[in-house]
Amino acid sequence: MKDVVVAGGTGRTGRAIVQYLTYQPNVRVVAVISRKYAGLHMSSVINDLAYDIPIYKSCQEALGHVRPAVLVDFTEPGIAKEHFQLSVEQNINPILGTTGFTEDEIEHFKRLCVRYCCGAALIPNFSLGAFLMLQAVRFGAAFFQDAAVIDMYPPHKTEVPSGTSKQILFELKNYGTFSAKNLTSHSLRLAGVTAYQEVRFGGIGETVVISHDVSDRSCFGVGVALAIQKINHFNQLVTDLADLLC
Amino acid sequence: MKDVVVAGGTGRTGRAIVQYLTYQPNVRVVAVISRKYAGLHMSSVINDLAYDIPIYKSCQEALGHVRPAVLVDFTEPGIAKEHFQLSVEQNINPILGTTGFTEDEIEHFKRLCVRYCCGAALIPNFSLGAFLMLQAVRFGAAFFQDAAVIDMYPPHKTEVPSGTSKQILFELKNYGTFSAKNLTSHSLRLAGVTAYQEVRFGGIGETVVISHDVSDRSCFGVGVALAIQKINHFNQLVTDLADLLC
Amino acid sequence: MKDVVVAGGTGRTGRAIVQYLTYQPNVRVVAVISRKYAGLHMSSVINDLAYDIPIYKSCQEALGHVRPAVLVDFTEPGIAKEHFQLSVEQNINPILGTTGFTEDEIEHFKRLCVRYCCGAALIPNFSLGAFLMLQAVRFGAAFFQDAAVIDMYPPHKTEVPSGTSKQILFELKNYGTFSAKNLTSHSLRLAGVTAYQEVRFGGIGETVVISHDVSDRSCFGVGVALAIQKINHFNQLVTDLADLLC
Amino acid sequence: MKDVVVAGGTGRTGRAIVQYLTYQPNVRVVAVISRKYAGLHMSSVINDLAYDIPIYKSCQEALGHVRPAVLVDFTEPGIAKEHFQLSVEQNINPILGTTGFTEDEIEHFKRLCVRYCCGAALIPNFSLGAFLMLQAVRFGAAFFQDAAVIDMYPPHKTEVPSGTSKQILFELKNYGTFSAKNLTSHSLRLAGVTAYQEVRFGGIGETVVISHDVSDRSCFGVGVALAIQKINHFNQLVTDLADLLC
Repeated sequence: MKDVVVAGGTGRTGRAIVQYLTYQPNVRVVAVISRKYAGLHMSSVINDLAYDIPIYKSCQEALGHVRPAVLVDFTEPGIAKEHFQLSVEQNINPILGTTGFTEDEIEHFKRLCVRYCCGAALIPNFSLGAFLMLQAVRFGAAFFQDAAVIDMYPPHKTEVPSGTSKQILFELKNYGTFSAKNLTSHSLRLAGVTAYQEVRFGGIGETVVISHDVSDRSCFGVGVALAIQKINHFNQLVTDLADLLC
Repeated sequence: MKDVVVAGGTGRTGRAIVQYLTYQPNVRVVAVISRKYAGLHMSSVINDLAYDIPIYKSCQEALGHVRPAVLVDFTEPGIAKEHFQLSVEQNINPILGTTGFTEDEIEHFKRLCVRYCCGAALIPNFSLGAFLMLQAVRFGAAFFQDAAVIDMYPPHKTEVPSGTSKQILFELKNYGTFSAKNLTSHSLRLAGVTAYQEVRFGGIGETVVISHDVSDRSCFGVGVALAIQKINHFNQLVTDLADLLC
Repeated sequence: MKDVVVAGGTGRTGRAIVQYLTYQPNVRVVAVISRKYAGLHMSSVINDLAYDIPIYKSCQEALGHVRPAVLVDFTEPGIAKEHFQLSVEQNINPILGTTGFTEDEIEHFKRLCVRYCCGAALIPNFSLGAFLMLQAVRFGAAFFQDAAVIDMYPPHKTEVPSGTSKQILFELKNYGTFSAKNLTSHSLRLAGVTAYQEVRFGGIGETVVISHDVSDRSCFGVGVALAIQKINHFNQLVTDLADLLC
Repeated sequence: MKDVVVAGGTGRTGRAIVQYLTYQPNVRVVAVISRKYAGLHMSSVINDLAYDIPIYKSCQEALGHVRPAVLVDFTEPGIAKEHFQLSVEQNINPILGTTGFTEDEIEHFKRLCVRYCCGAALIPNFSLGAFLMLQAVRFGAAFFQDAAVIDMYPPHKTEVPSGTSKQILFELKNYGTFSAKNLTSHSLRLAGVTAYQEVRFGGIGETVVISHDVSDRSCFGVGVALAIQKINHFNQLVTDLADLLC
């Protein structure tokens, strides 16, 4: 049984992760960090008495009350950086789903892991679908002459292309040799969509499409739960979900 | 039994139409017009003895040898215009799959039909799939807030967006009230694709997608065959396949 | 402004409809009928103070407190039958999304509408997507030789094929002339799916696919809201959403 | 430059392979084996003078005239077995795309490779798309609870499910732990389709789909060409395209 604190656990993704982890046999969510809902319990945020988890206003306050093995963070870069530092100092493994860090910040995380000999994870997309998609992209990139990356999200998503599309484009360039004309990206923003990513490989006489459709943010909980079980076997920064799964 | 001349019958689409019409019970292809292959027979172009159809260098020459009820034209605007005029003058119904006419030219065709009291068809896409897609677009345009039009073709297709996408966009604007942000068009050019069109409607909590995939140009023959049977019931220019089918 | 009572408004679909209607300018949800939550307000069911709507245990009780123009019903056949009778007797238009009625019961509803000169709607799927899909099916059925109907739902959905698939198959048989071999139905039950329907038409050299993806049950609210505005123009039973939209 | 004989080179797939290989820089098709067209040249079968390749009635006859490094075989099991034996005896690497061998026959091929210290390939699907799909299937099988395999082919394809579906189902069972209910197979036979395969993984809150669409049999030539370059590095039977590509 591993005790976990979830920072940002009242946000849309964070909440889905708290809900998913609560029903996992080897994990116990012992605290949530959220400035907005500090003092309440998750039961009143989710409107379900099963979630009897206290909410603290800061990492310091939470760590004054509980002693977790892992800190899961779905907040924002500035806050997540502080949480990272506080965690590794106390030998708590940080698992970050937060995105938007600079190259320098990521280097800093790597050095902190080495200095404190503490495993940590920084994964932009914790779903198994994203993992499978990236594996297929890495295998396919070398063999097809054309590739197109498509993302579809609701209109309020302003990031174009999506963060996942950027990651896929990066991998395609890394593993393949596409010219600008042969590797394109298309972002659709449409009402009624939840979150959809697609990679389309075109070759001689054939097309291969790998698509990933998220219907519920609980899918991110699956990868987080796997990371929680494995992260203590590492003493460096893990940035590829494949390292935790394979 | 209707006798038909196919102008442009040795091109990629024209050939598929000749092949399709040859196996229809109520149609007989009596001549093909093609400058490039003039003097040969279709049997040597298609490499199949079943196609014992003479090829003439011009419409005048063909009409000197055969007396068709219908002239099917898959050439280019300049040539097709001449063919149209020659046909209606002799009470032969022209059926044009040729695209790229100006508004003025289309008006001219309409007047020729009236003057000679002769039915003619000018249809940019003769497939039943394109027909069904347009019908769905007309029904859906008024009810959804977002729409995206996607076309996928091989890299050598330079027209962006495709002619069919342009037609769908026109219909969407005509039947719906989309802002520029809510109606987008995306063209992918990928090896291995034949011809693919998609309309995607996004609404509150739902998505409807209508897609059309052409695996063989014989699909255009189906609509042409239907038009051949019906066109003599008209004495004006028909520009919507729905008018010939419904 | 039309006052509406929603029977079954605390169920999964009913709740989405209450939430959707609450934000429509011309509709006011004045009561919900639910045995389970009777005595509470929707605000505590939905956990949002915006929904200050009383919940009554029965239709009789609700109609003792409020005087709606329309009764929306998403319950089950036995209960919905009672609600229908009570509504038309008091010149309240019933709008039923409840499914599972026998032919005899539907005939009975028709006679009640005539007797009381009262419009009513009985629509198995109130989404605009289902409407558009059915329109396309009706147009396509006559023109394609092969059709396949696919539904995908989560594993807990036991109905195979889905009710919507049954309706599509009925329309395909009605509007087309498919043999058993040419019209097939395929039901997939997969984790992670919400609700997906597809019709696939196969013809000579082409395929047309119409698909409908429900990401949120609010999509059913859209059709219900349109029905609420139009139903008083009818004095018979409406069973096709197209009659209310076109 | 490697000289290659293509047995079955006048069949539908064989012809596409001859056409593809003819335009590859490091390969020369020096003969085709076909009882039906023996004595002719490929130029008259394909109707293109570029294919000046003699056609022999048997492997023995072909090997009396040419001395290839590789024998590519797209015939049928009985004939392919003879070709395999004749090839390895003469240190010619056989590359078989022919399917339908028994387990015993495959064991026999393996022993022949060892006895003659000769590399050979027996690959049911030589396309890169099939390779990529299988790689994704192997990665995904362990991580998702539900999987569905879909194949779509024209009505004349009688094999249900397709050979590729069988292979995918085998891999899913091998790499995953699906119950019968969680792993289903669906075969659609529809006019207008060329060849389509899909694997659909369902997990908590997400779906991943990998699909492969063949628009032209030249896609099989790509894998054959790669196998021709690599097969002499092996001295056993290769049955997985991944071994030749990775």
